[in-house]
Amino acid sequence: MEREVAPIINDFWGRAEFPRKAVWGLRDLGITGSQFDEHGCPGMSNLASGLISMEISRVDPSVGTFFGVHSGLALGSIVLCGDEEQKAEWIPKLLSWDKIGAFGLTEIETGSGVALGLQTTATRDGDSWLLNGNKKWIGNGTFADVIVVWARDVEDDQVKGFLLETPAEGFTAEKIEGKVALRAVENAVLRFDNVRVPETHRLQRANSFRDTAKVLRLTRGGVAWNSVGCAMGAYEAARAYAIRREQFGRPIASFQLIQDLLARMLAGITASQCVASRLSALQENGKVSEQQAAMAKMYCTTRTREVVQWAREVMGGNGILLENDVARFFVDSEALYSYEGTREVNSLIVGRAITGYGAFV
Amino acid sequence: MEREVAPIINDFWGRAEFPRKAVWGLRDLGITGSQFDEHGCPGMSNLASGLISMEISRVDPSVGTFFGVHSGLALGSIVLCGDEEQKAEWIPKLLSWDKIGAFGLTEIETGSGVALGLQTTATRDGDSWLLNGNKKWIGNGTFADVIVVWARDVEDDQVKGFLLETPAEGFTAEKIEGKVALRAVENAVLRFDNVRVPETHRLQRANSFRDTAKVLRLTRGGVAWNSVGCAMGAYEAARAYAIRREQFGRPIASFQLIQDLLARMLAGITASQCVASRLSALQENGKVSEQQAAMAKMYCTTRTREVVQWAREVMGGNGILLENDVARFFVDSEALYSYEGTREVNSLIVGRAITGYGAFV
Amino acid sequence: MEREVAPIINDFWGRAEFPRKAVWGLRDLGITGSQFDEHGCPGMSNLASGLISMEISRVDPSVGTFFGVHSGLALGSIVLCGDEEQKAEWIPKLLSWDKIGAFGLTEIETGSGVALGLQTTATRDGDSWLLNGNKKWIGNGTFADVIVVWARDVEDDQVKGFLLETPAEGFTAEKIEGKVALRAVENAVLRFDNVRVPETHRLQRANSFRDTAKVLRLTRGGVAWNSVGCAMGAYEAARAYAIRREQFGRPIASFQLIQDLLARMLAGITASQCVASRLSALQENGKVSEQQAAMAKMYCTTRTREVVQWAREVMGGNGILLENDVARFFVDSEALYSYEGTREVNSLIVGRAITGYGAFV
Amino acid sequence: MEREVAPIINDFWGRAEFPRKAVWGLRDLGITGSQFDEHGCPGMSNLASGLISMEISRVDPSVGTFFGVHSGLALGSIVLCGDEEQKAEWIPKLLSWDKIGAFGLTEIETGSGVALGLQTTATRDGDSWLLNGNKKWIGNGTFADVIVVWARDVEDDQVKGFLLETPAEGFTAEKIEGKVALRAVENAVLRFDNVRVPETHRLQRANSFRDTAKVLRLTRGGVAWNSVGCAMGAYEAARAYAIRREQFGRPIASFQLIQDLLARMLAGITASQCVASRLSALQENGKVSEQQAAMAKMYCTTRTREVVQWAREVMGGNGILLENDVARFFVDSEALYSYEGTREVNSLIVGRAITGYGAFV
Repeated sequence: MEREVAPIINDFWGRAEFPRKAVWGLRDLGITGSQFDEHGCPGMSNLASGLISMEISRVDPSVGTFFGVHSGLALGSIVLCGDEEQKAEWIPKLLSWDKIGAFGLTEIETGSGVALGLQTTATRDGDSWLLNGNKKWIGNGTFADVIVVWARDVEDDQVKGFLLETPAEGFTAEKIEGKVALRAVENAVLRFDNVRVPETHRLQRANSFRDTAKVLRLTRGGVAWNSVGCAMGAYEAARAYAIRREQFGRPIASFQLIQDLLARMLAGITASQCVASRLSALQENGKVSEQQAAMAKMYCTTRTREVVQWAREVMGGNGILLENDVARFFVDSEALYSYEGTREVNSLIVGRAITGYGAFV
Repeated sequence: MEREVAPIINDFWGRAEFPRKAVWGLRDLGITGSQFDEHGCPGMSNLASGLISMEISRVDPSVGTFFGVHSGLALGSIVLCGDEEQKAEWIPKLLSWDKIGAFGLTEIETGSGVALGLQTTATRDGDSWLLNGNKKWIGNGTFADVIVVWARDVEDDQVKGFLLETPAEGFTAEKIEGKVALRAVENAVLRFDNVRVPETHRLQRANSFRDTAKVLRLTRGGVAWNSVGCAMGAYEAARAYAIRREQFGRPIASFQLIQDLLARMLAGITASQCVASRLSALQENGKVSEQQAAMAKMYCTTRTREVVQWAREVMGGNGILLENDVARFFVDSEALYSYEGTREVNSLIVGRAITGYGAFV
Repeated sequence: MEREVAPIINDFWGRAEFPRKAVWGLRDLGITGSQFDEHGCPGMSNLASGLISMEISRVDPSVGTFFGVHSGLALGSIVLCGDEEQKAEWIPKLLSWDKIGAFGLTEIETGSGVALGLQTTATRDGDSWLLNGNKKWIGNGTFADVIVVWARDVEDDQVKGFLLETPAEGFTAEKIEGKVALRAVENAVLRFDNVRVPETHRLQRANSFRDTAKVLRLTRGGVAWNSVGCAMGAYEAARAYAIRREQFGRPIASFQLIQDLLARMLAGITASQCVASRLSALQENGKVSEQQAAMAKMYCTTRTREVVQWAREVMGGNGILLENDVARFFVDSEALYSYEGTREVNSLIVGRAITGYGAFV
Repeated sequence: MEREVAPIINDFWGRAEFPRKAVWGLRDLGITGSQFDEHGCPGMSNLASGLISMEISRVDPSVGTFFGVHSGLALGSIVLCGDEEQKAEWIPKLLSWDKIGAFGLTEIETGSGVALGLQTTATRDGDSWLLNGNKKWIGNGTFADVIVVWARDVEDDQVKGFLLETPAEGFTAEKIEGKVALRAVENAVLRFDNVRVPETHRLQRANSFRDTAKVLRLTRGGVAWNSVGCAMGAYEAARAYAIRREQFGRPIASFQLIQDLLARMLAGITASQCVASRLSALQENGKVSEQQAAMAKMYCTTRTREVVQWAREVMGGNGILLENDVARFFVDSEALYSYEGTREVNSLIVGRAITGYGAFV
């Protein structure tokens, strides 16, 4: 990441383009599918897997998101919801990056209320299925070779998962333009117009939204770790800047107000690391509840939002320039803050667990 | 602004280009030089002038900055520091927009400590002067017809002001790339290599940095007002979104957590309006101290930073898209927060007035 | 206030006792009933009236609350809801402090939802009424000579107001013990067991809760002003302390981190003053809406809560001692923050006005 | 704590009196000197010791402070700085509570700059020493049987430690009145007027301030844990209140704004627990640096300050009454926030480690 991504990432981010070539080195590190241990996955601990997410995002959260989508959401869907045959076929392809994955869940009209609102449909037609509907915000959507598409079976109204290989007839992916955050992630709007997927490409162990939720729970910790990395990247740039930048004839790092910003940042980062580590330890023991994952995600992204703002502040006007390596983290943190569950929705998940009352509506 | 700028501004901002054509209508409103009353200036009250800044920035802070640079800093330098002849010649040109102005003060190595650190030099050579050095962050710098350049006279070490008409030999303006905020402002790095300016273009009543500071004090209130407008723009977009966006089958505007964000925003905006109005009233009476202007700037931009963050939060993931009209305000507020005096420097200006101790170093 | 209350207030506050003797001087200043102009009231502007509240609370918020209850709520109820005869009789008595007033609205089970939940009843019995029920938090309740009691007429279910002179048969007032804030206010639980009040003591122009609400709206601005005064008192003590306290051989007022706290305090106070002034100006023109009063109260008390916390922080450990004159303001601000409408309820009042959706339940 | 302290603590706290009898049960739990393992100390892990502090403070932070002073600071001074003979004599007496300890370091004029400013002197006089000077804020100071007094040896200017048994000629302890926080801790001003202490009572292994600092470092983690407990106590009371309190006909726990406050509290508490646990793990390995302890103390007390404020807010006006069990935690957290190093001083300790520049003056 430091050798190959850092030098070019601001350019790609500025152009809103994913640095496909520069990230290729990640493939050879043996970290894809880190938290899984089937069919060649490395079988690392949840903590190790979290630290990988953190380290990638410390250099760039867009790449962290790309990796989380491919290695966590897409591959994870296959690991958790595929049958043996599907796993044997697809896991190696994703591990080797022969196939890059995406994960199609969110829809245009449906943000955090996804469980209830899923409108993409799957209609059985002989040995295959026809998919109809749309998806929004799908990371890697413009270039993924295989997309895990979640759709509602018109027959039994249950949410099921499908492996869609691209290109496909009736399928289009349109890159979302005008993003200010995570610009190096290529999010897409996907449209499905009678897209045919064979039954063999239906994830055989995904029979309801509960199975989808399993994947989300597994990967949610990753967002907490990505957000820790995002904060670290901003802090490191701000610290280096404060030491080299002089005002009034002295390095600004020697001023109380700047030191206080740096100390608050470091404390926030350390706390987030502690929280994310604890979440990983719980995952390792298979004991993570939905509200714990929600709380960790909410907490770490909230602290990160503060940290990156302080980091940008340390740089004064120079903090709005990409070249000073803090502006990117500053805006990226907004995406992490809101995706995979807004702060509000996560807070209400925690609140329901605390009080026994659901207060979503 | 709503008719001609709003529909196109996200595109220009995205491309980091100033919408020169779309803003032309501002010229005909008779609001240029609003707070002055010489040589055809409209002679409005300080409050009216502030409200103009607010209203422009409510639609777009980049345009607000363009206007503040041309109508406040550049024109204001001439009004406050020019002699009668210079005023008679230049004021009408800037009022009619025949000449667009810029203001060259900040330098690469010198942010908030500008008074001490100015390194651009002016050397008298017969009937003219030679300018050498650089300037950074100069708004309108790529297309301005006339730039007020502040340089240190090598003879007496005093800061003096020069009207530089472009193009000029030895002068280059390079657009600053990679900005994440106020992207529709074209800031430039200016370089001066023995650039010749006639003595008649030296502002005759600018004899030390104290005179430069007079211009800054006059225009500083404008940043407070711009920042109020920035917050309003974000709030209005967030409110409209909350009313039209549904989740869980209901408009999110009907949820307590969303209402609370909106109410906090409106309260922060109202307080900033009250503070900025009070500053304008003091200006009207000629009673604004440096610390009052610093405090108002610091306070309004701090509140705005909160407001735009809440506004983006209301939109969830959709808040990072330019098309939803809140992302632009969100990042622009960072520039307003730090330019014309960072929060830290302004706080220490206030602190010195409160305690009697200067704590800058 | 500075001469007679300041020297003794920490003692009284510590003992949770109202300094009745020390405040007597307020009577002779001609400021009672300041905002009214009937039957000898001074008829000052709303702004002047607000500044009086601010100045009293700047020395002590408990005394500010005492004054607000007597001069605003109790006297105001008579001015707004009494008939001519009642006004002629009672206003002079309250102006001269021959009778000290209290205002009995809040009940044990009913905080912010008072309009719906009022359970104290009034039953017509010939030429008089029988009051039954309880009231909680009634300021001045232990020593007031006349209490404006709001009760629901069992006949028509409307809320009506009664002037209860104390002592009275069936009436008891029990001082609330164990308060940590506004300790010098003597709040009481009042109990009414068939307490008889003549029809002549029923406020003749209070025919529904709408009339009660008029009184509240009139006085709500006063809480905003009290809270501004509370913040000022804390700030002034903190500033003085910072200048006289030395650490590391220098006054702590010379440190950046202390100056920053002081500057933030002053900015917060100034903004609150601006907001409260604007509210007073709207009141002067009879144009205050419920949501504007709610927003001002919410905003000023929120800023005050920050200011007093920073003020206490400036003093380090010494900040928890009453004698340093900041601890009292620190805790008192919590009462101001929550009484006459919690932040949450006020926020939802504003939110309803913004969105058109009531989100209280 | 729940059985014997909880029922009576509000009364004692209100009267500013330490509940000596109620806490006696702690003696028999075998938790005194928990983190030590000499002469009968239980030799628990640092984590276990931290959890004990947390659990005591969860019921009452004043008792937590009493215990920290006796079991950590006083006993710890003997363990770390006494010779074998002193340890053999004194440790058992403190373990059995036959002797209650105090720790005399802070002075009237010297808060956080204690290392430099210590002014109490020790003058060798034959086989004994004469102590002169004063101490402030000394917890347990009014009733302690043995006080560890730190004084500067006039001979070599080094800080040394003395075990002063009370009563003693020339020694007085005056209870500090007028505290608003930790009111059940009896802090005292100690005065020493030629107080004689035998050389055998001088801690033989305390030869400079560095040795004093060792004790502080050992116990500083305890403050972080106390502060976590303080936050938990407030949260638990607020949660219970929210569930039982109804407004608008429903438990307030069912409202989004209340749930959000509770969820933020729980997240802040959990993060603080994670941070304090990590600090304990580092202590266990003997790897805690000064800046890590400073950061943990600063972070946990900052979060606690937020949590207790939200807890008080949940209760509205009722939150200022001791009987609702949140007001006590609310104000106590202020003492924890500032004692054993203010947030500012701890931040600058961290800042120095981050930047390499000391910015204290």
